[in-house]
Amino acid sequence: MGAFVIGMGKTRFGPTSKPMFELAQEAALDALRDASLQPDEVDAIIVANFLGGPNEGQLHLNSVLAGIFPGVHVPSWRTEAACASGGVAVHQAVLALARYRRVLVIGVERLSGVVGTQLARNIGMAGDAILDVAEGVSFPAAYALVAQSHMMRFGTTTRDLELVSLKNHANANLNPKAHFYLKKVTQGDIDQGPMVASPLRLFDCCPISDGAAALVVSSERSRDDDIEIRGSALASDVISLSQREDTTSFAATKEAAGRAYAEAGITPGEVDLAEVHDCFTIAEIVAMEDLGLCRPGEAVDAIRAGDSGINGRLPVNPSGGLKAGGHAIGATGVSQICEIVLQLRGAAGLRQVPGARVGVAHSVGGVGGTSAVHVLGAVR
Amino acid sequence: MGAFVIGMGKTRFGPTSKPMFELAQEAALDALRDASLQPDEVDAIIVANFLGGPNEGQLHLNSVLAGIFPGVHVPSWRTEAACASGGVAVHQAVLALARYRRVLVIGVERLSGVVGTQLARNIGMAGDAILDVAEGVSFPAAYALVAQSHMMRFGTTTRDLELVSLKNHANANLNPKAHFYLKKVTQGDIDQGPMVASPLRLFDCCPISDGAAALVVSSERSRDDDIEIRGSALASDVISLSQREDTTSFAATKEAAGRAYAEAGITPGEVDLAEVHDCFTIAEIVAMEDLGLCRPGEAVDAIRAGDSGINGRLPVNPSGGLKAGGHAIGATGVSQICEIVLQLRGAAGLRQVPGARVGVAHSVGGVGGTSAVHVLGAVR
Repeated sequence: MGAFVIGMGKTRFGPTSKPMFELAQEAALDALRDASLQPDEVDAIIVANFLGGPNEGQLHLNSVLAGIFPGVHVPSWRTEAACASGGVAVHQAVLALARYRRVLVIGVERLSGVVGTQLARNIGMAGDAILDVAEGVSFPAAYALVAQSHMMRFGTTTRDLELVSLKNHANANLNPKAHFYLKKVTQGDIDQGPMVASPLRLFDCCPISDGAAALVVSSERSRDDDIEIRGSALASDVISLSQREDTTSFAATKEAAGRAYAEAGITPGEVDLAEVHDCFTIAEIVAMEDLGLCRPGEAVDAIRAGDSGINGRLPVNPSGGLKAGGHAIGATGVSQICEIVLQLRGAAGLRQVPGARVGVAHSVGGVGGTSAVHVLGAVR
Repeated sequence: MGAFVIGMGKTRFGPTSKPMFELAQEAALDALRDASLQPDEVDAIIVANFLGGPNEGQLHLNSVLAGIFPGVHVPSWRTEAACASGGVAVHQAVLALARYRRVLVIGVERLSGVVGTQLARNIGMAGDAILDVAEGVSFPAAYALVAQSHMMRFGTTTRDLELVSLKNHANANLNPKAHFYLKKVTQGDIDQGPMVASPLRLFDCCPISDGAAALVVSSERSRDDDIEIRGSALASDVISLSQREDTTSFAATKEAAGRAYAEAGITPGEVDLAEVHDCFTIAEIVAMEDLGLCRPGEAVDAIRAGDSGINGRLPVNPSGGLKAGGHAIGATGVSQICEIVLQLRGAAGLRQVPGARVGVAHSVGGVGGTSAVHVLGAVR
């Protein structure tokens, strides 16, 4: 059975005063419009959201969003797998096609409006409350450990991290829906950014964003510019770095990528572009390796050579990624696939990757505790 | 494609000092043992949980529970749909059989250990933060409104509510895993219980429980006592009673039940027993009607006649239900199906419903914002 993205919609990522409902509604109705569907033509709704409870006092979000479709009584649920919630929801949509013809996936998150210390505590809920949080291993600290391991094993440098940041900010300047659209970021800004968790400085870290993204996934093609989901896979791992043998790569991503490529019948060499989960600059480097786009330790060679730029051999995060496009947690994995869809439709405007036919989206929860990998292909 | 429950496990419901991980592990390993499977023979894991974030500071629970299966990297996620989380997770498992041969569903919740006012606020997250919670419409208040509507329209009495409570406490006294196992509850206790939200008194309300339940759902039968999932359906509704026209029934349950019966190819008259979502006594009455087991307003006739007792014409909640069996929120919908499986296996001991061949499980989120209905059948 085929799986096709027949509609997509996305709000701008970044701070806003709009409530969650409005953000979700805007993205959902955009996706329906893009698919030329009425609200009652959707057979199931999957909502991806991470912090609605702790941040907004709102769980049971599938029922809240049923208010977008009153009287329809459509099957719906919310899924949560930390920062991978969106990618997981898209996988669930693919599975749901066994029964439902058209599934609407809505990813949504509001992170602004919560006091900083409280928000840090809430985001920490994606790590182990006992093994990590109680020991002070926040996410910047955990990814700093990954960066240090990677530097020690492979000779990766802070300059390499800076190159990722510079590229993603440059890409975001071509994406009107990016959190940091038209924000000028120089090498000097990055160099002089305050240290967050050594070696990660401010500009190595993605922002926290509000936003929503939506997709209509269908078992049937309806138009020429529908995009096929050729592979969809998840994998998990123990939650804490302290439980792992290797801290330079994520086994869950390698496992999910292997499954997704096998399902799609492709090798990593056939990938034209990737949207990867760069919550920190080091995460983009690790992702390029875990996805098999580069060999372990060799992502930096591609980055130094400019290969991961929009016009390079292997464009990564043309949207600006989480780093500069923004990270509206529950929406992020959905938004990545929106970007791939735009690219494969040839509709990505100034940030269009020339001749893109096959794209990969990669969504991670925690420090690799959950990973979702999707392979999408143009069908024209 | 068939869907079969090939293994089940459940902890006792009720207050405990065991952490969430241990509860989940106990139920999961029991289910695997019951299915004669090793941990690496499971192809996907679905975790149902409601308040892990607000209560325990722990989200991303699928990755935490991956620690039960280290090195396996199995696809996994957490689902949340308020008190329907467990029923929704079982529906997802049925959908997931399109790709995964054996899916382990784990429902888990810890509600004790949280200060009462904080817990009330957290449970309120299943309602609309703006339309309900900010206006003081807690769940006891919302179900009290449903009870008042039902009384005004159909002449239901507080005595009818008491009969539901008495029956479910009597049933729980036959269920060693029930929260109120061996608790003596008399008519006088119920009559004299403090008023919670008129007309609901203390013994009209279910307790809050800790606990876990697990199921192995498979696309293939493996043993004679496997139980077939003949129908599995979800439906949703707008979240707040204030948005509904009818407050004497739940449209989401009627919709889900219709879909589940159609899939199973049965009529409600063929149901031998039901486990329904009696978070309050009135909810059992509404469920009997919404599930089509009685006509609107006529559930009380069955209850007064004793038909819903274990040896009655239409046994409802032989486990003791949420009311006396306990309500470990994320686990509840899974636990209901464990009970149906035991009953259809003929293994329910002192509370066995004679000759049970077809059972229905009914799980509700909020005040009917989400409903999951499953029809299960013996295959011997």
